[in-house]
Amino acid sequence: MKLPPRTVERLSKYRRLLSKFRDMEEAHIFSHKLASMLNLTPEQVRRDLMLIGLNGNHRKGYNIKALIELIGNTIDREEGHNVALVGIGNLGKAVLGFIHKAETKMNIVAAFDTDPQKVNTSIAGVPCYNASEMEKIIHDKAIRIAILTVPPEAAIPTTSQLLHAGIKGILNFTSVHLDVMPDIYLKNYDIITSLEEIGFFIKN
Amino acid sequence: MKLPPRTVERLSKYRRLLSKFRDMEEAHIFSHKLASMLNLTPEQVRRDLMLIGLNGNHRKGYNIKALIELIGNTIDREEGHNVALVGIGNLGKAVLGFIHKAETKMNIVAAFDTDPQKVNTSIAGVPCYNASEMEKIIHDKAIRIAILTVPPEAAIPTTSQLLHAGIKGILNFTSVHLDVMPDIYLKNYDIITSLEEIGFFIKN
Repeated sequence: MKLPPRTVERLSKYRRLLSKFRDMEEAHIFSHKLASMLNLTPEQVRRDLMLIGLNGNHRKGYNIKALIELIGNTIDREEGHNVALVGIGNLGKAVLGFIHKAETKMNIVAAFDTDPQKVNTSIAGVPCYNASEMEKIIHDKAIRIAILTVPPEAAIPTTSQLLHAGIKGILNFTSVHLDVMPDIYLKNYDIITSLEEIGFFIKN
Repeated sequence: MKLPPRTVERLSKYRRLLSKFRDMEEAHIFSHKLASMLNLTPEQVRRDLMLIGLNGNHRKGYNIKALIELIGNTIDREEGHNVALVGIGNLGKAVLGFIHKAETKMNIVAAFDTDPQKVNTSIAGVPCYNASEMEKIIHDKAIRIAILTVPPEAAIPTTSQLLHAGIKGILNFTSVHLDVMPDIYLKNYDIITSLEEIGFFIKN
């Protein structure tokens, strides 16, 4: 199915939010409730869900279990994705701990660093390898997604290594601009941008 | 000036990227170059810049220095913003280190934790206080923005404390859904959503 990036991002958010409701008594949810919890319009929510083939019931709203399942069928890969994390500093450790506790089909199966104190240990259940083994481990474990949490000066050389090893998607936390081919899916996160957005809206 | 959140986010991204070009020889940049570096269309870039009153020169493109300055005049608050960080775990430390090195008007002036080992220390130049002092320090330092990096179980009580102390904007890294009044600007970041988006696009 072809979907715009923003729609996929929202579908993933709907599911993250709904999974917290699943165990409660409510079986259904209205688009306006989902919308208000995510700062969206009800029209946006209905449009997204219509795109994946779901119409809400006017009286009861959307069935929560069916919605979670349909989003999974749309955005997940049945067998999940093997993910590597590169750079086991404070941020790397935080990400490992966070994903360890989350319910997701994204499995971090390897972490890499150059620090001998970290190599051959295990953090949040993830084995840590020497960065020199990156190509071999990525190949052996069929890893196609990498999370980049290295220091800025290592961002560009590490990305070359990752792409050479066959990585197809990168989540870049370094704030360094990475130049990649159009067949690589690159997503950048920069905390300064988020803070400046907040600053603008509380200023006005 | 009234601008949509996505536009402010992109303006901040343009500036972050352009600041890396400022010291180079180039004085101008074309919209299509800026667009391709950020995975946007040139039309989108031109529309955003027109919104803040800037037209590019057809032959030379946009003047980089003027563009950086105009974005600053539009989205920054002249005196900057005082920011607090709550929760000095791995993620909190990573954020403190990251912002310490960045060029921005967002100043982290206080960090809070309940761990006595962290209280009264200083991390990346930021003084760490006991969470019990939150209300007083936020008031005294005129802090209006908070970064939430506490464990999930602390997210909701900490948010109540922050709002009670007068915080107007929150950057929430906890993945816990926070219910706030419409006059509070809440921005959530959830790494699982970013990874699931990458997973969808490399699957197809």
